[in-house]
Amino acid sequence: MIKVHKQQYQTEPFDISTLESKVGESVTFSGIIQNFRQTKWGGFLTVRKLGKIIQVVLDGDTRVTHGGQTVGAETLLNESSITITGKVRSSSIKSPLVYFKTVEVAATGIDIVTLPEAHMPLDVNKAGDDTYKLDTKLDWRHVSLRNPKDIAVFKVMSEMVRFYGEYLRKNGFTQIFSPKIVAAGAEGGANIFEFPYFDKTCFLAQSPQFYKQMSVAYFERVFEIGPVFRAEKHATSRHLNEYVSLDVEMGFIKDHTDIMSLKVGLLQYILNGLGETCAEEMKMFDAELPKLPDEVPSFTVAEIHEIIKREYGVDNTHEDDLNNEDERLIGEYVLKHYDSDFLFATHYPTRMRAFYSHTDPSDPEYTLTFDLIFKGRELTSGGQRMHDHTKFVEKIKQVHGMNPEAFNFYLDIFKYGMPPHGGFGMGLERLVMAFLGLTNIKEASLFPRDINRVVP
Amino acid sequence: MIKVHKQQYQTEPFDISTLESKVGESVTFSGIIQNFRQTKWGGFLTVRKLGKIIQVVLDGDTRVTHGGQTVGAETLLNESSITITGKVRSSSIKSPLVYFKTVEVAATGIDIVTLPEAHMPLDVNKAGDDTYKLDTKLDWRHVSLRNPKDIAVFKVMSEMVRFYGEYLRKNGFTQIFSPKIVAAGAEGGANIFEFPYFDKTCFLAQSPQFYKQMSVAYFERVFEIGPVFRAEKHATSRHLNEYVSLDVEMGFIKDHTDIMSLKVGLLQYILNGLGETCAEEMKMFDAELPKLPDEVPSFTVAEIHEIIKREYGVDNTHEDDLNNEDERLIGEYVLKHYDSDFLFATHYPTRMRAFYSHTDPSDPEYTLTFDLIFKGRELTSGGQRMHDHTKFVEKIKQVHGMNPEAFNFYLDIFKYGMPPHGGFGMGLERLVMAFLGLTNIKEASLFPRDINRVVP
Repeated sequence: MIKVHKQQYQTEPFDISTLESKVGESVTFSGIIQNFRQTKWGGFLTVRKLGKIIQVVLDGDTRVTHGGQTVGAETLLNESSITITGKVRSSSIKSPLVYFKTVEVAATGIDIVTLPEAHMPLDVNKAGDDTYKLDTKLDWRHVSLRNPKDIAVFKVMSEMVRFYGEYLRKNGFTQIFSPKIVAAGAEGGANIFEFPYFDKTCFLAQSPQFYKQMSVAYFERVFEIGPVFRAEKHATSRHLNEYVSLDVEMGFIKDHTDIMSLKVGLLQYILNGLGETCAEEMKMFDAELPKLPDEVPSFTVAEIHEIIKREYGVDNTHEDDLNNEDERLIGEYVLKHYDSDFLFATHYPTRMRAFYSHTDPSDPEYTLTFDLIFKGRELTSGGQRMHDHTKFVEKIKQVHGMNPEAFNFYLDIFKYGMPPHGGFGMGLERLVMAFLGLTNIKEASLFPRDINRVVP
Repeated sequence: MIKVHKQQYQTEPFDISTLESKVGESVTFSGIIQNFRQTKWGGFLTVRKLGKIIQVVLDGDTRVTHGGQTVGAETLLNESSITITGKVRSSSIKSPLVYFKTVEVAATGIDIVTLPEAHMPLDVNKAGDDTYKLDTKLDWRHVSLRNPKDIAVFKVMSEMVRFYGEYLRKNGFTQIFSPKIVAAGAEGGANIFEFPYFDKTCFLAQSPQFYKQMSVAYFERVFEIGPVFRAEKHATSRHLNEYVSLDVEMGFIKDHTDIMSLKVGLLQYILNGLGETCAEEMKMFDAELPKLPDEVPSFTVAEIHEIIKREYGVDNTHEDDLNNEDERLIGEYVLKHYDSDFLFATHYPTRMRAFYSHTDPSDPEYTLTFDLIFKGRELTSGGQRMHDHTKFVEKIKQVHGMNPEAFNFYLDIFKYGMPPHGGFGMGLERLVMAFLGLTNIKEASLFPRDINRVVP
């Protein structure tokens, strides 16, 4: 019998993130060799440690060992796992890929823990730039992810999710987990995956829409972080067939503007957080923190058409939706006049928005919904939802020509009492893509799924 | 055009969780009527607010309004959404379902926001006890969840996930999101859901095992919170067909004991956290925090058989696995001698554990794996994984009789270099069930999926 103590697993005697405060001290840590450049007098190693790159310098006296034997430095292959002992010293490092810019470790000893058995099919140190085509990198995704820029993308994603949850919990939200195996699609349309579930036919959830709304009755404010599935039949640079949806729903709102305010507060919190913990990662992508003022301009779709006509001479005032060009122009206008990368467009037509969208009491042809437009492109959307059972059933039948019987359990929630409520959903990969300026959303998915790709 | 300010959404002027410090103050807040007991002089309301129950007292002077008109108090139906104005005063409340035990709100005004349209099919105020059968409650899950005990279960779940993430982030772990649409099962066996994915056949992930191990090469320490899918063909009180898996994987370990230590530290952090934020919720279930000492006893399966033979006269020393009775007896022994509700059992036979389990270098018939046994039942398991490519491929072929070609992308990770690593997975619902002492795991799933149940 042994006793397991919780402290044993602290296999390293110091927190690597404090390396820059350790100048003059001796340290020991383990990591994976990102790259080794051997010189006559020793060499430069970059070492991957908890997703950060550390520069390590070897000289003639550095002792390299493997299985208790001293070996030559040429034994150190990229992607070897090693344990380094050395002294932290000041340095001035230019490479954007090295995380710690002011220190390096002068190694006295390097012990090889494991060696790779084979050379990699591509040079991972070039997988972060344009040397390879995206398709090649994705075919070898499990290998190409071994590069600092790809790793940075997912460090940013992890932190984004952290700040998202922190902010919502601070404001009374409960995290829920709704089922991904469902009996009916929440978003309609043909882009739904169907599968045999024992003696039934079921679907993969397109969104947690029904469940997060229902949860308002129990918890009042809820959020969810989970996968959603869309059977999109074409591959684009902005769509995935499986993505992570950040969902929010809140009860007792005045109207959609409460939801928009929540969203501004949440995004500011996330961006401030990223500015604090992911500054080095953002620099790798030359990504500046977006401009998100305390007051974000919000226009109705009709107002946007007026502005575009007046400012740019483009007359789409007969349209009641926005096209890509409209979004681009209003984004340009708002950046110039309000110094904001963000704006809200509101009051989309009722027939174009999801059946659960609340109509505008002053004109039921339009909804209390919004899109958040970031740098001239739609980033996420949301709005107030229907909550009056009678009016909701009427709208489903009259406006959308759908049969309310198909989602009885969902409509029950409104029958038995529901406060005014609303919310939004945001694709996590799309947020990462937007804030880092990536050109393809697949770069923001660890192992992306599209119509052709389910491996690795 | 309007400007959306982040503060607008703070629709309530105070944080409801501070209600007990507001004695003598006037407050206004919105909530849903949990129950209304009318009396000659007014009545008692319990109000659901952010998942907590507040007692509100009406007297003859309380003005009840609806749409600007004064109405009688009898208009207040259970599940109505209301806005309450009143004064906080001291009280001494016995009901375990009321969250705030030391204060109540003396209402001067109640404004009805929405009214239910219909009576509920069951009395939700009895849905937290044994009045209804579990199946009845689950058939009406979307309604029965409107009761304080069920809500408490999911408050505990939300907080558990919070502390899980907090602890791991503090220790350098990156949160990952791996695909749930996969080309091959990670856990083998027949309990996998298959579905048509465009021109391919794909599966729903049984676990993120392959992806979390691969991610050790990139991030060294990773965790995931996400659904997993098991096509279990029988309904039991301990299994779900979809559940939330809390997964952890860590590189540069000495052996499985580093993983066990991490797990002890993590569970202590979660339990301490629940003790701080969920004390009222735990009381509703008469649930005491489990005994988890700093040092948790760990025995090999062989040692456990010796103890059981010596202490209880049950001789299973010829077996190399544990049955339910063995787990129960060793749990009893450990509680008595070590005052711990937890123990580890280690060194399970190689042929019985997953193919990726690391063999014990001193006896390859056994693995460096463990089960964590809680109150005499297996709660979760984990261990060190194979990381040497040559030995791993050999083990897959020789021991498990499987074809390594089936998971080439996964095995590549080891070919190109991988440190010693290990981890564990824990079913979130099972943890909630264990710590609250629930009798059926379905009570710990918001909308449980079993062989018969995919609605609501």
